[in-house]
Amino acid sequence: MTWMLAADQGATDTPAVQWSAGKLRATRESLALEEPLAIEITYRRGATEVRRLVATTMRTPGADEDLACGFLFAEGLIADRGDVDHFHTGDRSSRGEAIVTVTAALRVPPRESLERVSRSLLTSSACGFCGRPSLESVRPAAADLAASGQRWNPAVLIGLPMALRTQQPLFAATGGSHGAALAAIDGTLVLVREDVGRHNAVDKVIGAALAQPAFAFGGHALVLSGRASFELTQKAAAAGLPVVVAVGAPSSLAVRWAADSGLTLIGFTREGRFNAYAGAARISSDGTP
Amino acid sequence: MTWMLAADQGATDTPAVQWSAGKLRATRESLALEEPLAIEITYRRGATEVRRLVATTMRTPGADEDLACGFLFAEGLIADRGDVDHFHTGDRSSRGEAIVTVTAALRVPPRESLERVSRSLLTSSACGFCGRPSLESVRPAAADLAASGQRWNPAVLIGLPMALRTQQPLFAATGGSHGAALAAIDGTLVLVREDVGRHNAVDKVIGAALAQPAFAFGGHALVLSGRASFELTQKAAAAGLPVVVAVGAPSSLAVRWAADSGLTLIGFTREGRFNAYAGAARISSDGTP
Repeated sequence: MTWMLAADQGATDTPAVQWSAGKLRATRESLALEEPLAIEITYRRGATEVRRLVATTMRTPGADEDLACGFLFAEGLIADRGDVDHFHTGDRSSRGEAIVTVTAALRVPPRESLERVSRSLLTSSACGFCGRPSLESVRPAAADLAASGQRWNPAVLIGLPMALRTQQPLFAATGGSHGAALAAIDGTLVLVREDVGRHNAVDKVIGAALAQPAFAFGGHALVLSGRASFELTQKAAAAGLPVVVAVGAPSSLAVRWAADSGLTLIGFTREGRFNAYAGAARISSDGTP
Repeated sequence: MTWMLAADQGATDTPAVQWSAGKLRATRESLALEEPLAIEITYRRGATEVRRLVATTMRTPGADEDLACGFLFAEGLIADRGDVDHFHTGDRSSRGEAIVTVTAALRVPPRESLERVSRSLLTSSACGFCGRPSLESVRPAAADLAASGQRWNPAVLIGLPMALRTQQPLFAATGGSHGAALAAIDGTLVLVREDVGRHNAVDKVIGAALAQPAFAFGGHALVLSGRASFELTQKAAAAGLPVVVAVGAPSSLAVRWAADSGLTLIGFTREGRFNAYAGAARISSDGTP
C-alpha cells in the first residue's frame, strides 16, 4: 500500500521512472521532506541580548520547536523546558537562501559552554563523543539500575517496534524516515515522532516530552525504528530514560556506554526475539512485573 | 548464519541475554565497532607548519587513511590525492583519552577555508547544507548528462545492491553496518567498504578510489546499502560519479540536488524493481548500452 501525504505531513510527491518486469514506466512517488533548520538561542548577559546560532540540521519539517528543545537539552544547553521562556519560528538568511530558524529565548544563560557544544558537533557523522556531557551528568533514572525495582515484561518489550511501525505514516508513505517513541511500562506509546534523521526523531520525541509538565522519563522506554548508535543511547541516558529498545543492531560503543551508565539496551527486536546487551536486570525473567 | 569477525575486521564479540520463545538465555553476539577517529591536516604557511584538527568522527576502525582522504576531498579541502604528501596515523590526547588520529600532510594549503568547513559541520545530523561547495564545484562527469552517450543497463543496475550485500562481511556478522561500493558499467564492484556510519562508508570507498592512479569516477556508480540522503548524493557528485544506486529511499533534497547536478539517482532497488528519481536518460530503456 502506498499512501500519499501532504507537505504539511512531512512528505512530497515527485515524478519518477520505475523499472519493473523488464520495462521502464513513468510513476509518481512520495518522498520524505529533508530541509535545513537553524537552531539559535538568545539570552541576556548583563544589559545586552546575546544571539547565537547553535546548529543547522537537515530535518523533516514539523515539530520544529520540539526538535529544537530536545536538541538543546541533549547538548546540555538547557536543563529542562523551564529554561526556555518561549520559542519563536522565523527565517534567517544564509548565503541568499532563507532558512527556517527556531529561536529559543532562554531565561538563563546556556548551561554548557557553546564552544564545547560546537566542538562536539564538529564531526562528519553526528559524533557525540568529544566534549559531550560526561557520565556524571546522566540522570538518576538510568543510573540506578541496581537499586531500581522496575521490571519490564519481555512480552511487552518485544511488541514495541511493531507498535511504533503502525504509528509511522511518513514511513508508510515514503519508506524513507525513522521513528522514535516513548513507551510506558505497559507498552503504551505515549509519544511518537518521525524524521529523515534518526537523531532528529529522538530529539523531537524527547523535546515533546519536555514540553509536558513533569514528564516521568524514569518510567519510559525509548523505542527506535533503526539501529542504536552511541549518540542515541547517550540522548536516552541524558533524559533519564532507563530503557532503549531498537529494531536494529547496537554498535560496540553504544553497548559500552549503556553498561557504564546503567541503561538497559535492547536490540534486534524482531522475528520473535530480542537481545539485551546491557542492563538485563530490568527485564522480568518470568514475564511478571 | 552468524559469523564472528575479529576486531581487526571491524567487529567485537559481546555477551548478551536473548529473549526467544518465551525464555531468556545467555548468548554472545557480534557488534560493529564504533570508535572515534580524529582527522587533522598539516601544511606550511611561509616558514611555519600549521596543524589543524578538522573533524572527529565515530567510525569502524579500518581503512582510516582512505576515510580521511575521502572526507577531506568531500569537504573540498583537497582537490585530489596528489594534494597529500603522506598520511600518518597516531594518537592524540583528548580529555585524558587517546584518540586515533590520521594526519594528512598537505603539499599545498587547504583549498577550502577551514572556517567554512567547520561551519558546514556544525550540525546535528551530518547536514552538508550550509557552507558546502556549491553546484559550480560539481565535477563534469555528473553534470554532462545531456551530452553523455553513457547508458546503464537496468538489468545490471538492479543487481548492484545484492552484489554489494554479498561483499559485506561486517554486516553479515553484525547486522549493524552500512556498505558502499563503486561499480563499473558492466556491474563489477571494483571497491567495497563498510562502516557503522554510512557517510564514512562513502568517504572510505571514494578515498580508496582516489588512492588509485587516475581512477575514472565518470565511468562508475556509487552503490549504497541504505537510503540516499542529500549529503551522500552530494559526495557522489563532488567525486564526479554519474550514478547513485541505493537500496532504500531518497529524501526530497537528495532528488532536488541530483536533478540540479545532472546525477542519475536510483532508489528502492529491491524486489525486482527500482525507481529513477533523476537522470533517467542515462538508463538504457531496452537494456542495451
